[in-house]
Amino acid sequence: MTEQKRVLTGVTTTGTPHLGNYVGAIRPAVAATQEAGVDSFIFLADYHGIIKCHEPEQIHESTLAVAATWLACGLDADKVTFYRQSDVPEIMELNWIFNCICAKGLMNRAHAYKAAVQANVDAGVEDTDHGVEMGLYCYPVLMAADILMFNGTHVPVGRDQIQHIEMARDIAGRFNHRFKELFVEPVAMVDEHTAILTGLDGRKMSKSYGNTIPLFESEKKLRKSVMKIVTNSLEPGQPKEVEGSTLFEIYQAFSSADEQLQMRQAYADGIAWGEAKQIVFEAINAQLAEKRERYAELTANPSQIEEVLQFGAAKARKVAQERLNQVRDAIGIRALK
Amino acid sequence: MTEQKRVLTGVTTTGTPHLGNYVGAIRPAVAATQEAGVDSFIFLADYHGIIKCHEPEQIHESTLAVAATWLACGLDADKVTFYRQSDVPEIMELNWIFNCICAKGLMNRAHAYKAAVQANVDAGVEDTDHGVEMGLYCYPVLMAADILMFNGTHVPVGRDQIQHIEMARDIAGRFNHRFKELFVEPVAMVDEHTAILTGLDGRKMSKSYGNTIPLFESEKKLRKSVMKIVTNSLEPGQPKEVEGSTLFEIYQAFSSADEQLQMRQAYADGIAWGEAKQIVFEAINAQLAEKRERYAELTANPSQIEEVLQFGAAKARKVAQERLNQVRDAIGIRALK
Repeated sequence: MTEQKRVLTGVTTTGTPHLGNYVGAIRPAVAATQEAGVDSFIFLADYHGIIKCHEPEQIHESTLAVAATWLACGLDADKVTFYRQSDVPEIMELNWIFNCICAKGLMNRAHAYKAAVQANVDAGVEDTDHGVEMGLYCYPVLMAADILMFNGTHVPVGRDQIQHIEMARDIAGRFNHRFKELFVEPVAMVDEHTAILTGLDGRKMSKSYGNTIPLFESEKKLRKSVMKIVTNSLEPGQPKEVEGSTLFEIYQAFSSADEQLQMRQAYADGIAWGEAKQIVFEAINAQLAEKRERYAELTANPSQIEEVLQFGAAKARKVAQERLNQVRDAIGIRALK
Repeated sequence: MTEQKRVLTGVTTTGTPHLGNYVGAIRPAVAATQEAGVDSFIFLADYHGIIKCHEPEQIHESTLAVAATWLACGLDADKVTFYRQSDVPEIMELNWIFNCICAKGLMNRAHAYKAAVQANVDAGVEDTDHGVEMGLYCYPVLMAADILMFNGTHVPVGRDQIQHIEMARDIAGRFNHRFKELFVEPVAMVDEHTAILTGLDGRKMSKSYGNTIPLFESEKKLRKSVMKIVTNSLEPGQPKEVEGSTLFEIYQAFSSADEQLQMRQAYADGIAWGEAKQIVFEAINAQLAEKRERYAELTANPSQIEEVLQFGAAKARKVAQERLNQVRDAIGIRALK
């Protein structure tokens, strides 16, 4: 049983990363991989992607965009295990094995499923499972397989995902009890301090709100996006509040404490919105410019990224095959000899 | 799209085959593999076995017993594709992909799940999913993957399994409609004439009734088993009825029409039960003796059976990999290039 801290992070491949993903997930995760004593597993969760996204081109293009983004943001594929979920078929096999020990009641209580049922209730639809597909219903089992396949000890998640980690613990405990002590019960890492970036319109930056700034849009477009951030109608020279200022909130994610102090002063001194936006744009751009260039290089050579992913898959499968063999043996799926 | 008749048969690996399995399933299936123009896929469904059986040794031993039984009964592994489900991981991957297109409502209507719910209702258990595991709930999706992975066109099933084939058709149709025309909708083959063997006590021979005659028990034991078949208390010399005679019913499965006529006459002439049982024993034994010997040889060399299964797995995976590649491409899971 491994005692090492193994952090496991999955990234769904259904869109193109935006500034909010960068600040809230990619930047801290890449930083965490550089901590001593941490063994990081980071994977492209394309088999989760297909639960909601039925557009093949979108799945494919997003896989490229997400992989290139993480690499451009400094992920070191030699240091971590960086792989595509669908390249590790052992996970799908473990998923089925876990189905055979997982209580159905556990899935009935999953948030995403309950939300779908509630939406049907609210809409007056008699069949509360209307429009629900098995992928949505079963995916906490797949998440458990994702994590336990590698005995991930720590899983960084948002508050809404804590339940899934508890389910993975439940499944691990059941397996250990019923067959053999093979799985570590993972711990959810909820970082209360992780920045949630504000979007153009002042709400949380999210694809579903259509208020995002794409992470690696061109410098010119980035400038335009920043200029679109909502502000109030105070004129140059009029003192401005940082409290409730979307622009200031975004700036905080890309500036030092000193720079933020200066900006607070500039607000109090009545800086023009256009001028403030220029400063914010420059701060963001300074952090992204080099990465954007690497991103462009990477996406221009998809086969090179594929190589990186295959390298990662080989590393991941080495671990996965060994554990799956132990699991199969424990449940009686063995070669005849 | 294949137009060939491809018959697919799965055998769960949770017990040791008995005379009822032989007469009702194995004998007709082996005979069917010898028909011209039929491409047979026969597999050991160990990943179905673990749904209900949580005894590793039983799963393992049953795999050996079932494989050896089919081979001893004349299955030609060169002619058919004979494999163990767990040796074809592509099936587990397809299972997940099908989850993502299968309506949950379909599973809600599955007989086995509904029976489990009803049992809870009848027992006054408030949580109607009490004791239900995800394996039981989800397995019709796995069955669809088992069948569609190889585009099985015909699936021999009992009446209670027809629904599963309809579900496989539904899943095939959904995939074809949503992504690409890749799957043939399979047809259920329900043979109304397949013998259902009567057990020692006059009920259907079934493991769950504990009234079975193990297929390859020793000649001595087989004789003892036949002697235990229930009869009435009519004395030698008293005329006997073939109607309702368990002994006669079993004899029918192992005798020609001529032999049955003779036995009818012997009943009418008041044959002693002991004498009749001796004739029945001899008829069964005549059909099984050679097979029993081969079974003993086979089970004494498990690694040889393993070789046969690996040979079958290689054949099966060739088909499975090709189809899975097409499926993955259709849903957008592709190499970057």
